[in-house]
Amino acid sequence: MTKRRATAADVAIAAGVSKWTVTRAFTPGASIADASRERVLREAAKLGYRPNLLARSLATKTTNLVALLVDDFANAYKLPVLELLTQALQAEGMVAILININRRFDHVAAFLDAGQRQVDAVILLGTDFRDETFSDQALPAAGPPLFVLARESTIAHIPSVSCDAPQSMEEINDHLWARGYRRPGFMSGPRTLSTVLGRKSCFISFWQQRGIVEVAELPAGSYDRQAAANALRSYLAATPAEERIDVLMCENDALAIGAADVARYEFGLKIPEGLAIVGYDGHEMTAAPSFDLTTYQQPMQEMVAAIVAMLKGRLEPKSITIPGKLIVRGST
Amino acid sequence: MTKRRATAADVAIAAGVSKWTVTRAFTPGASIADASRERVLREAAKLGYRPNLLARSLATKTTNLVALLVDDFANAYKLPVLELLTQALQAEGMVAILININRRFDHVAAFLDAGQRQVDAVILLGTDFRDETFSDQALPAAGPPLFVLARESTIAHIPSVSCDAPQSMEEINDHLWARGYRRPGFMSGPRTLSTVLGRKSCFISFWQQRGIVEVAELPAGSYDRQAAANALRSYLAATPAEERIDVLMCENDALAIGAADVARYEFGLKIPEGLAIVGYDGHEMTAAPSFDLTTYQQPMQEMVAAIVAMLKGRLEPKSITIPGKLIVRGST
Repeated sequence: MTKRRATAADVAIAAGVSKWTVTRAFTPGASIADASRERVLREAAKLGYRPNLLARSLATKTTNLVALLVDDFANAYKLPVLELLTQALQAEGMVAILININRRFDHVAAFLDAGQRQVDAVILLGTDFRDETFSDQALPAAGPPLFVLARESTIAHIPSVSCDAPQSMEEINDHLWARGYRRPGFMSGPRTLSTVLGRKSCFISFWQQRGIVEVAELPAGSYDRQAAANALRSYLAATPAEERIDVLMCENDALAIGAADVARYEFGLKIPEGLAIVGYDGHEMTAAPSFDLTTYQQPMQEMVAAIVAMLKGRLEPKSITIPGKLIVRGST
Repeated sequence: MTKRRATAADVAIAAGVSKWTVTRAFTPGASIADASRERVLREAAKLGYRPNLLARSLATKTTNLVALLVDDFANAYKLPVLELLTQALQAEGMVAILININRRFDHVAAFLDAGQRQVDAVILLGTDFRDETFSDQALPAAGPPLFVLARESTIAHIPSVSCDAPQSMEEINDHLWARGYRRPGFMSGPRTLSTVLGRKSCFISFWQQRGIVEVAELPAGSYDRQAAANALRSYLAATPAEERIDVLMCENDALAIGAADVARYEFGLKIPEGLAIVGYDGHEMTAAPSFDLTTYQQPMQEMVAAIVAMLKGRLEPKSITIPGKLIVRGST
């Protein structure tokens, strides 16, 4: 671990040029003869020399580092988001620092640590934090700019990019209404989550506007498959068959998968005849024949593109929502 | 994005102390009166000042940054690994730079870029790269040290931590043999993968030692659920029922899930009566009642702990394997 790194001076000596020429060879657009650049790059490759981005960052005050704060690694949709986001950042010459802010770590400390590393921005890809955590009182004034991805920000000066909850719930409910479902239930994930509140309130108000006042609420408490199984199991065990819901809207796909398995394997309910089930996110596993779940595809690619455009100053940083796409499958 | 960051000098003025006192307040173990430290930290918090790690890194030559190179984000077991790894690194005061090296990006360039950012080490969490990519010829001498996680390294000077393939295959096969299976098949993922070769060759040699020379090979070509479905579909369509395998060992859980769905929903085979199926990795989804798959749990926690111990110099950096745990479920 203590090998000395080659310096620009080493390369200059090896290539028989000035140190200034070495610098120009590594600076996009700098004036330098092709032959000199080639010689410098060849010698640099031999010596393993690359310009020190750390030193350059101190001078330019940009690091091209973006901190990603992630709280919930159990949620499978995080993986495709990480793929899309790292891909989009790298295509712009930036890289992501991945900071775990699960319950063992403090959100605000993570934000401050990111600031210490002089990141150009912080993207919060979280589900389980409270909006108040990131209020003016909790955060110092001079930190890196904060963006929220895949959930709404309820704080005016923190821009967010998320899937359009009212729009998605209307599409889902129009579909369920047309299929004849009239006894709806909603299974929610973590309690603190503003996306849940958004989706849930949109879901409920649709049915209430059509005279169906009672929407069963099944709080799972987390985005865990097992938590969903427990919530549906309790509900079905406590509710006579003739009073049960005929369709269950789940706040995400993991919940829908857990619910589907309990309905079929523990209560012998056919899907959708005995109970229709809808997920949310559009995770790949919903397409598996074992589940064949109707779900709402979050527009991840567009959401990631919008966040990166805000980071790069091509898009005004403000809170926006993007519509996704209803995917109808066998579960409804 | 252009807010000026508070400096140590700003904090010194606000707290009425010297700049040197500010530095000591932020240096663990430095001699400073409690009252002074408190005053400095209070003023620093108000101003949003934190010491510049970038400048400190230039002086100390360590950044506490570790580059994680990840190639395959479709593979669901990557998410718990990322959680465990970021958690373990952060507990040691390090953070991970997540670098996407999927097909759109160049592996060696990613390694060099990590070096440019002066990371203390590079961890390769990859499946789809060739060992030769990281040979001496391809890499410059003076880069950060490289470690390989969750697959074997076949290059002597690159340490790796992986699950013990021969041990795991023996445990799996002992179980299958005891259950009476005698017509085995093996479904592999990416072609270039040394773990596949390790698992496959161990699997096949077990049966050959017991006189079963013919082990059907079903190459899926990737770790994709759909690829697994295609591979098993082709095999079943081309093979008369009486000549078919009675157990399919899949190189990972995603393949096993894809195979199970095709067997049941397209060919009406009961699992395990019509076809027994075994996965590998121990992904959470294998426990879902829809699949109920026998699988081999990789010892992720222990593997991550070992890699971090090597990084921190508590464990000699060399290639090691760690045994996992067979989880027997309904699919065998």
